[in-house]
Amino acid sequence: MTQTVGAGAVPEQSGAPAPIERLSLNTATVRAGLLDTVEACAAAGVSWIAPWRQQFAEVPIGVAAKAIAAAGLQVSSLCRGGFFPAATVGERAARIDDNRAALDEAAALGAEVLVLVCGGVVGRDLAGSRQMVEEGIAAILPEAEARGVKLGIEPLHPMFAADRSVITTLDQANDMARRLASPWVGAVVDVYHVWWDPQVEDAIVRAGERTLAFHVNDWVVPLVDVLNGRGMMGDGVIDLRHLRRAVDDAGYGGPIEVEIFNENVRAMGLRPALELIVERYRQTVLG
Amino acid sequence: MTQTVGAGAVPEQSGAPAPIERLSLNTATVRAGLLDTVEACAAAGVSWIAPWRQQFAEVPIGVAAKAIAAAGLQVSSLCRGGFFPAATVGERAARIDDNRAALDEAAALGAEVLVLVCGGVVGRDLAGSRQMVEEGIAAILPEAEARGVKLGIEPLHPMFAADRSVITTLDQANDMARRLASPWVGAVVDVYHVWWDPQVEDAIVRAGERTLAFHVNDWVVPLVDVLNGRGMMGDGVIDLRHLRRAVDDAGYGGPIEVEIFNENVRAMGLRPALELIVERYRQTVLG
Repeated sequence: MTQTVGAGAVPEQSGAPAPIERLSLNTATVRAGLLDTVEACAAAGVSWIAPWRQQFAEVPIGVAAKAIAAAGLQVSSLCRGGFFPAATVGERAARIDDNRAALDEAAALGAEVLVLVCGGVVGRDLAGSRQMVEEGIAAILPEAEARGVKLGIEPLHPMFAADRSVITTLDQANDMARRLASPWVGAVVDVYHVWWDPQVEDAIVRAGERTLAFHVNDWVVPLVDVLNGRGMMGDGVIDLRHLRRAVDDAGYGGPIEVEIFNENVRAMGLRPALELIVERYRQTVLG
Repeated sequence: MTQTVGAGAVPEQSGAPAPIERLSLNTATVRAGLLDTVEACAAAGVSWIAPWRQQFAEVPIGVAAKAIAAAGLQVSSLCRGGFFPAATVGERAARIDDNRAALDEAAALGAEVLVLVCGGVVGRDLAGSRQMVEEGIAAILPEAEARGVKLGIEPLHPMFAADRSVITTLDQANDMARRLASPWVGAVVDVYHVWWDPQVEDAIVRAGERTLAFHVNDWVVPLVDVLNGRGMMGDGVIDLRHLRRAVDDAGYGGPIEVEIFNENVRAMGLRPALELIVERYRQTVLG
């Protein structure tokens, strides 16, 4: 399986709607069961999906994998592994074991990428916590390679540095990926997390083909909630087209995942939300 | 006036309480009138204060300046100038005029530094908005020099990039200060805004003696409010002593300003809040 989508898929006719074959839906964007979401994506012409691990409590992973394949969808990524820093050796080992389980699930789904939300700071020790992240990723690299699943280090917005990710910039993810020196590690670029960074364009070039995923949404003003305040594309201040072109120019050609955590979007209902997502994707991301 | 505090002021006796002669109170930390705050600072042995411009609607600036001097206090900085980006030439000129008025007020108070909260993004154009900031600061440099007031570029936490400051990292402030190439421009280091940055130690070294102010508070988990969720020193995850040592080792020796925006701290009342601030300052910042 490759995530690269050929430029040849662009239709010749200038009047045709822009193609959406790179569009992926992160399932946390909508409030619906996984199987309903799969069906709605297929009906809307969305051919990629990115589920969350906790959904396999609702639908056994084998059932989910079959339904996704039967609908003609591919899995852009699985959310999520990570959360490596912990106060004790035993807890850190347990976190690593959980990441191995996540890799098994990603492989069972045929997901090319496991997204890593790396974890927050332990004991006011930022440097030590970052080291725990790097050691955690190094520990699961053999399993990632054995399962054919890439590890996507996702820098999170610095407002999550305390509790979710001590990896806060794309360049930091790039540096870590280079030190780990494996084709099975790369970076996840989510516009919500990186748009503000004065170094983001340079970091995107540095990431290059090591960019494993690209996520879109928007930053709305005022920010109502750090976790669930993401906006629909076009509702905020991010120049999405600029960043999409930057990652593509740097060598990325894979799926473009819509990941919006916003109760208003969830309240729209599955099909109306998908309709708006497709419309805004064409208007603000493509071109 | 100099803000550098000599190491000679450290008492010889090991049992004496750690000296607080560098401690400054940013008045937004407490909910009280400016004159009451001045009096409480003097009573608590706090010898620096950092007022906000809007307080001069309540107390005429000449009255404030006299009261501050009579209480034996010095003004570490005035909050605030900035907010340079705007959609039209006319509005940008009005913002620059307002910064000139702020410089007059800073000079009237004997404040060495005017803190610049540079302003958010206009029209989804981050690069253009950053250019407006640089042009705005360049425009007021002659007045800053004429009044003997330094301009402190304060990088704000990236969660404020959309609406408050397109300057989000200390290195970005450093770069801008270097391009402006004036002894009247430097950087303000606030731990809340910069603690997460993987480059912060290097950036502090680069800032060196161009660090014009150092602000302390804390980052508490969970973050209840982006604007008013700052914590009391010691209540959060920031290694304050590490950052204080870093700025001092890089050549800063000026006041250490406590700037906490938190309704719970304000609700404590002026004197109890000051008492806790002094205690936490000794426990978490000094040493």
